[in-house]
Amino acid sequence: MGRRHAENLRRLVPQAQLVAVADVAAERARRTAGELEIENSFGSLEAMLECKGLDAVIIATPDKFHADAVKTVAAAGKDMLCEKPLALTLSDAHELLDAVSKAGVRLQVGFMRRYDPAYSAAMKRIEAGEIGVPVVFKSVGRDKDGPPLSAYQANLGGMLFYTNTIHDFDLARWLMQDEVSEVHAYTTVAIRPEVAQFGDVVASVVNFKFNQGAIGNIESYAQAVYGYDVRTEIVGSKGSIMVGSMQQTPATFLTAHGKTQAIADHFLTTFADAYLAEIQDFVDAMLNDRQPRVSGEDGLRALAIAVAAENSYLQAKPVKVSAVSSVSGS
Amino acid sequence: MGRRHAENLRRLVPQAQLVAVADVAAERARRTAGELEIENSFGSLEAMLECKGLDAVIIATPDKFHADAVKTVAAAGKDMLCEKPLALTLSDAHELLDAVSKAGVRLQVGFMRRYDPAYSAAMKRIEAGEIGVPVVFKSVGRDKDGPPLSAYQANLGGMLFYTNTIHDFDLARWLMQDEVSEVHAYTTVAIRPEVAQFGDVVASVVNFKFNQGAIGNIESYAQAVYGYDVRTEIVGSKGSIMVGSMQQTPATFLTAHGKTQAIADHFLTTFADAYLAEIQDFVDAMLNDRQPRVSGEDGLRALAIAVAAENSYLQAKPVKVSAVSSVSGS
Amino acid sequence: MGRRHAENLRRLVPQAQLVAVADVAAERARRTAGELEIENSFGSLEAMLECKGLDAVIIATPDKFHADAVKTVAAAGKDMLCEKPLALTLSDAHELLDAVSKAGVRLQVGFMRRYDPAYSAAMKRIEAGEIGVPVVFKSVGRDKDGPPLSAYQANLGGMLFYTNTIHDFDLARWLMQDEVSEVHAYTTVAIRPEVAQFGDVVASVVNFKFNQGAIGNIESYAQAVYGYDVRTEIVGSKGSIMVGSMQQTPATFLTAHGKTQAIADHFLTTFADAYLAEIQDFVDAMLNDRQPRVSGEDGLRALAIAVAAENSYLQAKPVKVSAVSSVSGS
Amino acid sequence: MGRRHAENLRRLVPQAQLVAVADVAAERARRTAGELEIENSFGSLEAMLECKGLDAVIIATPDKFHADAVKTVAAAGKDMLCEKPLALTLSDAHELLDAVSKAGVRLQVGFMRRYDPAYSAAMKRIEAGEIGVPVVFKSVGRDKDGPPLSAYQANLGGMLFYTNTIHDFDLARWLMQDEVSEVHAYTTVAIRPEVAQFGDVVASVVNFKFNQGAIGNIESYAQAVYGYDVRTEIVGSKGSIMVGSMQQTPATFLTAHGKTQAIADHFLTTFADAYLAEIQDFVDAMLNDRQPRVSGEDGLRALAIAVAAENSYLQAKPVKVSAVSSVSGS
Repeated sequence: MGRRHAENLRRLVPQAQLVAVADVAAERARRTAGELEIENSFGSLEAMLECKGLDAVIIATPDKFHADAVKTVAAAGKDMLCEKPLALTLSDAHELLDAVSKAGVRLQVGFMRRYDPAYSAAMKRIEAGEIGVPVVFKSVGRDKDGPPLSAYQANLGGMLFYTNTIHDFDLARWLMQDEVSEVHAYTTVAIRPEVAQFGDVVASVVNFKFNQGAIGNIESYAQAVYGYDVRTEIVGSKGSIMVGSMQQTPATFLTAHGKTQAIADHFLTTFADAYLAEIQDFVDAMLNDRQPRVSGEDGLRALAIAVAAENSYLQAKPVKVSAVSSVSGS
Repeated sequence: MGRRHAENLRRLVPQAQLVAVADVAAERARRTAGELEIENSFGSLEAMLECKGLDAVIIATPDKFHADAVKTVAAAGKDMLCEKPLALTLSDAHELLDAVSKAGVRLQVGFMRRYDPAYSAAMKRIEAGEIGVPVVFKSVGRDKDGPPLSAYQANLGGMLFYTNTIHDFDLARWLMQDEVSEVHAYTTVAIRPEVAQFGDVVASVVNFKFNQGAIGNIESYAQAVYGYDVRTEIVGSKGSIMVGSMQQTPATFLTAHGKTQAIADHFLTTFADAYLAEIQDFVDAMLNDRQPRVSGEDGLRALAIAVAAENSYLQAKPVKVSAVSSVSGS
Repeated sequence: MGRRHAENLRRLVPQAQLVAVADVAAERARRTAGELEIENSFGSLEAMLECKGLDAVIIATPDKFHADAVKTVAAAGKDMLCEKPLALTLSDAHELLDAVSKAGVRLQVGFMRRYDPAYSAAMKRIEAGEIGVPVVFKSVGRDKDGPPLSAYQANLGGMLFYTNTIHDFDLARWLMQDEVSEVHAYTTVAIRPEVAQFGDVVASVVNFKFNQGAIGNIESYAQAVYGYDVRTEIVGSKGSIMVGSMQQTPATFLTAHGKTQAIADHFLTTFADAYLAEIQDFVDAMLNDRQPRVSGEDGLRALAIAVAAENSYLQAKPVKVSAVSSVSGS
Repeated sequence: MGRRHAENLRRLVPQAQLVAVADVAAERARRTAGELEIENSFGSLEAMLECKGLDAVIIATPDKFHADAVKTVAAAGKDMLCEKPLALTLSDAHELLDAVSKAGVRLQVGFMRRYDPAYSAAMKRIEAGEIGVPVVFKSVGRDKDGPPLSAYQANLGGMLFYTNTIHDFDLARWLMQDEVSEVHAYTTVAIRPEVAQFGDVVASVVNFKFNQGAIGNIESYAQAVYGYDVRTEIVGSKGSIMVGSMQQTPATFLTAHGKTQAIADHFLTTFADAYLAEIQDFVDAMLNDRQPRVSGEDGLRALAIAVAAENSYLQAKPVKVSAVSSVSGS
């Protein structure tokens, strides 16, 4: 993910200058800097923050290190874009938002789906009242291949709700213009029971309701085999919207086996434009001295839903989403 | 619904002979008999059961009267096809199944989606192992226009779970070849709060798990405005299946407003072929002296899930589905 | 084809009574009669015409015998539905229409696509002016498997333009509410050169113009391998209509190979409803003593376009369509 | 078009440096230079060619001036990308290719559809033999709004075959890996007769055959009202490929009026990625000192088909495509 952001900045966003890359694997940082034809590479975030000419930082570390990285960057007085999830616990999230607020820096959270042309077209229609009052929110998020077991063992990321479903939690809040108040989750490890020991699951269905009476559900699935498949529906009192097409390119193949369309196999393919638009908007916010559109509070609120979903799964009952008081510095 | 079954029998199933129609509104029965060009019409089920040459009965009364009608027909020693839901309470269902069993007659339950070409193609693929182990079951069922308020007032049917979602409960059992063990439901009356006083809701999301570890969710919506929309997905370890197309006919209209396809607006349109296939299969079972493919036990088990869903909604917690011991007479 | 019409009549059209079947292979006629549980079978059309209680005849012989069969039935004073093409030469067609006219009987031609729900929905939209003035007509007709070589050797049917494209010629006239004035055709035998010796081709593209200035093209293909694929577009001054979906049932299969939909493989599958509606309308016309909706003149005019297309192919130049003076008896 | 190329170069292709823009409307050139934040703007191509640091030129003048512009750039010893059509007459095209050859410079022609992800995926499948032997080529190209009458009056471009269909002529050659040998065209001005006086038409259908026996047809339409719609099919002996989706973004809107998808309204929307990939490939060819992938000969051969189509329309008969001897310098 860091590589993609670096490439986008270097190759497709002439308004910004990619000054340096850092990786705890210093050799990898060096290689990447070489491939991107930039001068500076570092073996730690701290070292990079000393680099001259640095105005803003993109944080794309493993999830577990997001909170510390944000605090370090804030302490250095730099603006930043942090990948989702903002943190893995609510207390970490609150701490980092305090740090950001005190440092007076800017923080954008990487919910790039908001920048996808189809999602943003949907949002415009909803805001224009074309579907009336939103009543039901539904979303599906499926990855093609499950993570290797080593990824679970490394224990660097959160469980399915934090790494995958969190995108849908953010979309739910954003598209419904309302807050999720309570969730209920079922999960399964049916076809890969060995992930259970790492506290993770293969698939989940999350039921939820919103403050103003709407309801919704989200399904997440870590290994859909057939491809990367993200779809969202908002059912309203006057009409509905469906977003998402798993098709890779508009080419259809017809053979004696039927009609076949290639399916996108990775989020970097499906959301290539969204990632670019995200970083362009971040760069624009920095250059024009404005707050980012996807705030730290957005990161915190999506996280609060993920925490409630995990608790519902652990406690086998519906769980209310923690109230989040509006956060000053985000 | 009774009218459609009668028309199908009269016009499209020459193997069967439509002998009589009955309606508590005797005048309406007479008019229908006239239009269908048959001789006998009756003002009550009891009267009709006296009619000569009657071998089997189709029950399409309001839901509330299903249980009594089944018992009456069983007492008369006739076979029958009863519309869904089999009954509105589990005790009614058990009673009627006992009656059927003691009378030694046959009972088919009207889950006609199993007869839809797309659903049955999906089932064949699943049985052939093409998607591997089923992991997630998902279904959506939306009606175009909500029932008039008078329908709620009449109090002749069950709430959304019994009239609409019950189709998906049956599909879940059938396609996953497993039993639902526990459910959790959220509901909303957001855009039509006046239905709450009748114990009903406008939309619901039901989360559930199966005995063997799979999970699922179903959304039901009583007034989708844009059309009648039924879709189901089964996500498996080796692939997935999506069933359902809301398109009315394969004609697409392109104007300056975009690309428009007419959407089916009623289940009698979408499932016209399924209703015919259902009744053909029922007639075939009767003529060949075999048990129907959709049994009374199927009716009972789907009902047990609906009851659990209603209880989850009333008690605001997950609810286990009542164990159903295999039923002899069905 | 005769078998399908017989089954529809016997099983799904109670208003009509299937009295007899005839086939020059008398044994096959007898077997069919047995399977359909009717009493009478004959080894010749002439013999069948003697059969008591016969009001109307369906002609589904090989194309070559259509003309003679129509004249024979007309001479016997019976109404009839004749499969397309009406005849293989214009002189045969004129002769048979004269015979029909003199006998004062009714003749419907088997352009069943007009009865397809999607095509008839399109026609209603065009008549309502929703696409403005039609400017371009386009159609594609592909069969899954090419005929066996023995079929070409038997020499009982016309070439591709008469057996396949003639449906599109009829649709062009009907949907554009205009007459085709001139055509130009290219053909190919590229992947099956051995059909050339029988005067036939594997695929063709026909360009044409209409009397009132519109233009169009049609592609026909005898062996598309992937399925039976029929699609039509009408491009108008205010919008366009696309008819046709090659999808067999609305079930979609997602595997690591992509997104696959089963494709219809035969016209009896795709147009099952159209064939039934066609014969229901024919029966209705007979019972109500009205002229059929698809007339002998329609059969003649489509044939005239096929003849022009064949001549264009043989003479390698554009060819005008023979003027057809309105025909009295059709 | 020139503006889009300039923007792509300036904003999204850091490997190249946009040095200058030229426009006979010098003030517009100045404004564009300002907006793109570059220093140099000129009121003529000749003046711009004097500009220091210029290595290659993009020609996006009106069609009529392509030939002269290419010769001027060649005389200045610069490489170039010229928009389609390469020229409006075959003699102009031959002359300019001679000039390019003698000057020893490189020339790429702007057939950007070859760079579209769906078209290039299709080509890979064809080259891999997945559809067997290509038998029929079909293409549709529709613009949303017809050009204003002033555009016809200005007489700066070729007729429909040169401005629109020429893309499909190029695709036909490229995807079928064969040359078009003969064409036949019908055209219409039915809904806009006033364009006839300028030698142009509103829509056309072109029938053609290839050297090795395949056949094809293309429809072009200048004012489809509903959107910009480009679709291509290649039917082969083992399967077929359909390319093209008129959908703007994968968002679907469901209302009581049906299911609506926004349609792309302009080629700059549909082919945004293709235009970028085209210019990236051109820049790459220049930087790596290799011949462009879309050559001057490709431009000439597509033009020869357009000329034959125009002649077929003017002479009302099929016309052979001029033999083109392989061109050295392209």
